[in-house]
Amino acid sequence: MAIGDAIVDVIATCDDAFIVERALTKGSMQLLNAAEADELYAAMGPAREVSGGSAANSMAGIAALGLNAGFIGQVADDQLGDIFAHDMTSLGVRFETAPLTEGPPTGRCLILVTPDAQRTMNTCPGASHELTPEALDEAMIRSAAVTFLEGYLWGPERPRRAMLRAAEIAHEAGRTVAFTLSESLCIPGRREGVRSMIDAGTVDILFGNEDEIRHLTGRGGLDHCIAGLAGSVATLVITKGAEGALAVEGGRRVEIDAAPVRKIVDTTGAGDLFAAGFLSARCRGRALEACLAAGATCAAEIISHFGARPEADLKELVSL
Amino acid sequence: MAIGDAIVDVIATCDDAFIVERALTKGSMQLLNAAEADELYAAMGPAREVSGGSAANSMAGIAALGLNAGFIGQVADDQLGDIFAHDMTSLGVRFETAPLTEGPPTGRCLILVTPDAQRTMNTCPGASHELTPEALDEAMIRSAAVTFLEGYLWGPERPRRAMLRAAEIAHEAGRTVAFTLSESLCIPGRREGVRSMIDAGTVDILFGNEDEIRHLTGRGGLDHCIAGLAGSVATLVITKGAEGALAVEGGRRVEIDAAPVRKIVDTTGAGDLFAAGFLSARCRGRALEACLAAGATCAAEIISHFGARPEADLKELVSL
Repeated sequence: MAIGDAIVDVIATCDDAFIVERALTKGSMQLLNAAEADELYAAMGPAREVSGGSAANSMAGIAALGLNAGFIGQVADDQLGDIFAHDMTSLGVRFETAPLTEGPPTGRCLILVTPDAQRTMNTCPGASHELTPEALDEAMIRSAAVTFLEGYLWGPERPRRAMLRAAEIAHEAGRTVAFTLSESLCIPGRREGVRSMIDAGTVDILFGNEDEIRHLTGRGGLDHCIAGLAGSVATLVITKGAEGALAVEGGRRVEIDAAPVRKIVDTTGAGDLFAAGFLSARCRGRALEACLAAGATCAAEIISHFGARPEADLKELVSL
Repeated sequence: MAIGDAIVDVIATCDDAFIVERALTKGSMQLLNAAEADELYAAMGPAREVSGGSAANSMAGIAALGLNAGFIGQVADDQLGDIFAHDMTSLGVRFETAPLTEGPPTGRCLILVTPDAQRTMNTCPGASHELTPEALDEAMIRSAAVTFLEGYLWGPERPRRAMLRAAEIAHEAGRTVAFTLSESLCIPGRREGVRSMIDAGTVDILFGNEDEIRHLTGRGGLDHCIAGLAGSVATLVITKGAEGALAVEGGRRVEIDAAPVRKIVDTTGAGDLFAAGFLSARCRGRALEACLAAGATCAAEIISHFGARPEADLKELVSL
């Protein structure tokens, strides 16, 4: 099961000039308030809407791979909230967090995809950041093999408390806690809190891309970064985009190449689906190499089309 | 400019068994009330949302081809209405119909796409059928070379009156009126009204597929159908799916083959974009053959991906 942002992605293509004009950092994520989001939306091209949210995408992947999945995240009682809930439950993901009847609307992520398939994300988190510890379904957390927590939700205070409480519940039940780093680490003051949480032994499996791992550890070379984290997490998984991925566990390091993709259309969700593939294989008791390979295959599927929810039958692509 | 349903498409794939179980007629359109739509939505798989509406899709195509386009259609003041309005205006389509602040929500069309790329449409028209003649922008209609009317909107009484009034305004200004037939012709009592309207000289350019044309005329062979309509419309355009299309004008009949498509993914919007290509070429003064060819090229683009709004740069595909 996972705890994360409950968000609908609003995906439009744009040219590089649009990114430059608006002084956006290509490939990054920035947070917008409602007025900023409205302004950017008005300037964007026609869009398609697909349910998103980083950890929610991972749960969609896990359900598509045929495993039981659950999600806790906050939507509002509005049309985008209905869409998010429908898409989760229709995939077979248990999603029972009651929608908020007042406060901000369901969160949106305005995603600009450039011709190089890079995505630039502009998140208006809305109701998503209103998640409280009271929204946790403790029985669901206790029964789940893995509780997967999303770095994007680390910033706001109540969702952070909710995630820390969920990790406690999971560990009390003898379960595994996984955490995915995110670009929100770049926000000043964020890094230290995440680092302390990891050093305190909260995280059993840590996912991140190279940049995020470097940012977290503050060390230059990747080998140094790995050494700096190896004592704090049992399993460290680092994605390297087109260069594949690696995992370090019990002093052993395994590397794999990226899975082949005919045409990369939109890289949104690559990390989310990598985590889905990895965790699914792990839950089925597969070896570390097979977990990495399953992650790479799922990531390859997601970047071959727009949107961060699987379109092909993942069960046919990955044998768990 | 066009008058039509203002609707957001909710597109999910499904297998043939789902269509059979629910006793749907594959390839058809049926109207649902809100409760029926909620029930079907709950049973559907995860979806993507893309703005739709038959005539609205055509206007999106015309704008994408670089011509001025306008649209009159009714949305509600809600998130799907915002999405519809954004997608139209961001394409450069003038869309200024004020959203309804009370009454039904913005219309949705639940589209089930089977592995053979056929679409089965389940429309909950919502606010769309609340369009009144008072919503018409008379200046926009008078200034438009073509006023394009959507058959799906013929059923409800107020939108029908709005369309008939728009045709009057257009003809008073010496403009052309185009009408696209639709499966809603199959609703009992619908056919006679459409036929009378056509026989009264309301329509200058009539679009339909073979089934619709047969249904309208009630005659067996296509040649008989054409003969039965030739006296009532100046230009008759008939699409024949994979077999291409034909047009009859001034006693002359022109036929073309379908444009090649690498892989047909979703046939939703094929007719809408055919009309967009045809009308764009017509507005640029191109010959009948070139109008048909432009229509075929636009239709081929739209069926190569999910959704009925163009994704490729139509201006690069069609030289007007």
